[in-house]
Amino acid sequence: MSYYDKNALKLAHEYIRANVGKRDVTVDATMGKGRDTLLLAQLSKKVYAFDIQERALELTRERLEENGVNNAELILDSHHNMKKYVSEAKCVVFNFGFLPGGDHTIFSKPETSVAAVKAALDIIVPNGFISICSYYGGDTGYEEIEALLAFLKTVDAKKYTVMLQSFYNRANCPPIFIVFERTGE
Amino acid sequence: MSYYDKNALKLAHEYIRANVGKRDVTVDATMGKGRDTLLLAQLSKKVYAFDIQERALELTRERLEENGVNNAELILDSHHNMKKYVSEAKCVVFNFGFLPGGDHTIFSKPETSVAAVKAALDIIVPNGFISICSYYGGDTGYEEIEALLAFLKTVDAKKYTVMLQSFYNRANCPPIFIVFERTGE
Repeated sequence: MSYYDKNALKLAHEYIRANVGKRDVTVDATMGKGRDTLLLAQLSKKVYAFDIQERALELTRERLEENGVNNAELILDSHHNMKKYVSEAKCVVFNFGFLPGGDHTIFSKPETSVAAVKAALDIIVPNGFISICSYYGGDTGYEEIEALLAFLKTVDAKKYTVMLQSFYNRANCPPIFIVFERTGE
Repeated sequence: MSYYDKNALKLAHEYIRANVGKRDVTVDATMGKGRDTLLLAQLSKKVYAFDIQERALELTRERLEENGVNNAELILDSHHNMKKYVSEAKCVVFNFGFLPGGDHTIFSKPETSVAAVKAALDIIVPNGFISICSYYGGDTGYEEIEALLAFLKTVDAKKYTVMLQSFYNRANCPPIFIVFERTGE
């Protein structure tokens, strides 16, 4: 148990590996190049993955095929519309503000990001969770993280536990890992 | 792996249990009623425990005797003087701002608290750590946590990893768990 060799993404993947099983339906809300889609597909029964750029679906489709994975449904739509496609999920995984090849530049905006997290809160099952890696600063700016943090404070603590983890002394806006856990009720 | 049934103190104790062994020398920087002193005594080779109130030493001595523990050295001095008594330790454990029976009201001040953490950074061995539970707000106020957080940002990230964990949506200033890990170099 240590943090020195970790980062937000590693913490997220450790948490996901520890809490997702083959009976679970999962959601990758920010497909990008499909890394999380592949992880969720390998761990869970089925993953629904969202991106609004056709290129992201192509890259992810290639990655899944290379790994012989066929339990992912790739959806060309914004993650804030996820409830149109998924009614219940064990988890919803987000990477906010990150720009792998610029995938998220179009829709990773504060209002749609918070709307997407709200949608995710509605679909996660009891004992389900939302994982967020938030990249901010630099080109990405602070508007999204500020909107997200302000929203987190308002989330009902009786129904959800919000845990925020920050590598507090690292330089250049170290990404933050946030997990929402829904209680068993 | 979950957080909904945890709090800062439970996270600290989990971390301490996972990272302290019978070969280790440990420090309880804020003895109070001796709960952490007992935990560290049971886990480690020897614990040096600090408090500036004789009453804290009495309560802790009773607790240790009740549990048949005799590997603790109870020191009537402020934790910011710990280097006078201990040159090397696997870990230093703090509870800041908490007032069990008002034990800490006298010396849990921003300047001595930050000085104590600096002293702890000097004595922890490679792969050693500092654990801090920071209680703030209410009677305790915000001055100490603000001074502590400002200091954390200045800690050399090449030598130490500072991980901050916050139950972000809980009401009434939920205590924060902070761990400093010293790298192996």
